[in-house]
Amino acid sequence: MTEHSLWRFSRALHRAINERQYEDLATLLDDDVDWAIYGPIDMFPFLGARRGREAVIEVVKQIAENVRVHRFDRETIMLGVDSASSMMRYSLTSLESNKPISLRIAHFAQFRNGKLRSIRVLLDTFDLVEQALGRPIHLPKMTSLG
Amino acid sequence: MTEHSLWRFSRALHRAINERQYEDLATLLDDDVDWAIYGPIDMFPFLGARRGREAVIEVVKQIAENVRVHRFDRETIMLGVDSASSMMRYSLTSLESNKPISLRIAHFAQFRNGKLRSIRVLLDTFDLVEQALGRPIHLPKMTSLG
Repeated sequence: MTEHSLWRFSRALHRAINERQYEDLATLLDDDVDWAIYGPIDMFPFLGARRGREAVIEVVKQIAENVRVHRFDRETIMLGVDSASSMMRYSLTSLESNKPISLRIAHFAQFRNGKLRSIRVLLDTFDLVEQALGRPIHLPKMTSLG
Repeated sequence: MTEHSLWRFSRALHRAINERQYEDLATLLDDDVDWAIYGPIDMFPFLGARRGREAVIEVVKQIAENVRVHRFDRETIMLGVDSASSMMRYSLTSLESNKPISLRIAHFAQFRNGKLRSIRVLLDTFDLVEQALGRPIHLPKMTSLG
């Protein structure tokens, strides 16, 4: 039984972020890969949508300039033949401030011939913003949704 | 082939929220169901973790007092024998203000004997907070993560 594409992709992605070695990752991306990490792109320009291998390598370089992956725990995972989804907890370190950032993420990935064809990532963005600011955002207690 | 537990759960949940009919949902929850919607609970008390059927019905009642589900689109879905994950876009209406709220969510669910045993839901919480406030939160452009 061959290894699921997710594991190779995951190793290559973390190697790209932590060691700034992008070659393995590039070989595991479809030419026309469809990539999106949903979140406030005005504040974090390395979030948002990218299309194609070059654009994805470029944004992973931006991510690598900002954070180091300290550890990650996969809390839930589902594997299909050419697909995978997980809920994960990441412990990151901000490279500029050296502050720890704890982040929950969910991803849905599709592979083709062992290469990443599309990935969608959702983050607990409010939690991320507060940690990046280093202080809580004071907001009214909402009795209803606005 | 029997219907996947996700579909019955999804119908019962939306019926509970929109019609305030909780009986079907209650029969589809494991006695000891483990429920979590990650997000800022100080602002939205109906987010957070709940344990057991009664606590979940109670929190769904709170959700039903706050929003109506206008529509939802499943963008990605993975189904296992007793598990399911999806990335979805919800169009909600805030009942108090009658304002529309558009929300991306990811869920991971586990079933046992057709009943929900656990669910974990991740939201694009910063986007939710801004929509609930009805205005953008002005924040510095971060050159790095804090």
